[in-house]
Amino acid sequence: MELLEKRIQSDGIVKKGSVLKVDNFLNHQMDIALFNEMGKEFKRLFKDRPINKILTIEASGIGIACVAAQYFQAPVVFAKKAQSINIDGDVYSTRIESFTHKRVYDVMVSKKYLRPEDHILILDDFLANGCAVNGLIELIESAGATVEGIGIAIEKGWQIGGKTLREKGYQVESLAIVERMDEQTGEIFFRN
Amino acid sequence: MELLEKRIQSDGIVKKGSVLKVDNFLNHQMDIALFNEMGKEFKRLFKDRPINKILTIEASGIGIACVAAQYFQAPVVFAKKAQSINIDGDVYSTRIESFTHKRVYDVMVSKKYLRPEDHILILDDFLANGCAVNGLIELIESAGATVEGIGIAIEKGWQIGGKTLREKGYQVESLAIVERMDEQTGEIFFRN
Repeated sequence: MELLEKRIQSDGIVKKGSVLKVDNFLNHQMDIALFNEMGKEFKRLFKDRPINKILTIEASGIGIACVAAQYFQAPVVFAKKAQSINIDGDVYSTRIESFTHKRVYDVMVSKKYLRPEDHILILDDFLANGCAVNGLIELIESAGATVEGIGIAIEKGWQIGGKTLREKGYQVESLAIVERMDEQTGEIFFRN
Repeated sequence: MELLEKRIQSDGIVKKGSVLKVDNFLNHQMDIALFNEMGKEFKRLFKDRPINKILTIEASGIGIACVAAQYFQAPVVFAKKAQSINIDGDVYSTRIESFTHKRVYDVMVSKKYLRPEDHILILDDFLANGCAVNGLIELIESAGATVEGIGIAIEKGWQIGGKTLREKGYQVESLAIVERMDEQTGEIFFRN
């Protein structure tokens, strides 16, 4: 998606350790006009899928998912990262390793909001090694629901997540795939 | 807001300890069509305010803020709950006590996204004792920015947050103010 690639080129910052900072438009300050264009593109890419629910994970997937959901006329469910007294005990849960935060955390979704009859689109901001997405797939499969596709804002093309998921047969659509970043010059190269 | 009150009446669940569970449409599963109506109402209530940015707090404020932001044509910034290696050290931070989670946590916003010239609308899902909103106000004041108003989905009218903020002169607009809940019968009563 050219609009997103241009924005990454102009506003993304390459940091040491393969970190791409996009926090001025994607995951701390959020450009909602851009999110709307991304939502339209996700709808175009998944238009043939019978999606009735969108699943994401807190926190930075929520904004993208909620704006995109308008084009699918579907509710959004977000996987929560810690036990809350406000959630019933009856949850699907799994453990996810975060590349960004260098730690492991538990995520969960109430069993009420993942049902066998659900056809689910997973949306998230980043796909790197795929731990978050694989965790969400595990939650969906625990419920006996169907994964219709996986929509990602930015995929790190040199990491294994996207390749592995596509090999398993999932429809993975990343709006921008970064092929390579140069930590010295700050240059960002996209996959065509 | 009648639509929201009706939804709370039909889908909200009163639990022990003054907990109102609305996780099937507001803060776990999210009804985006409802969020759009809430966003329009926030715009109507704050239409005379020169708002250029919306500030919320992760995780359950993000969806409401992002959908509402479309009616303000403003970006959303969300306060983050823990230090991340993906955020620069240059942040405004404060400590917030969570009523729901019964614990204290640090929140922060990058100094890049709160500027003295910003006119900010705070949006969140719940207002009870006001700790989260007061923390966000503190972040905004640290930046020398202006609080234009505070928009809340559900206020617990018997708790002190709303009253205290209004007495300080803030424009606080809660789309539904719960006056009283009966833990025995599950009844929910709204302020007129």
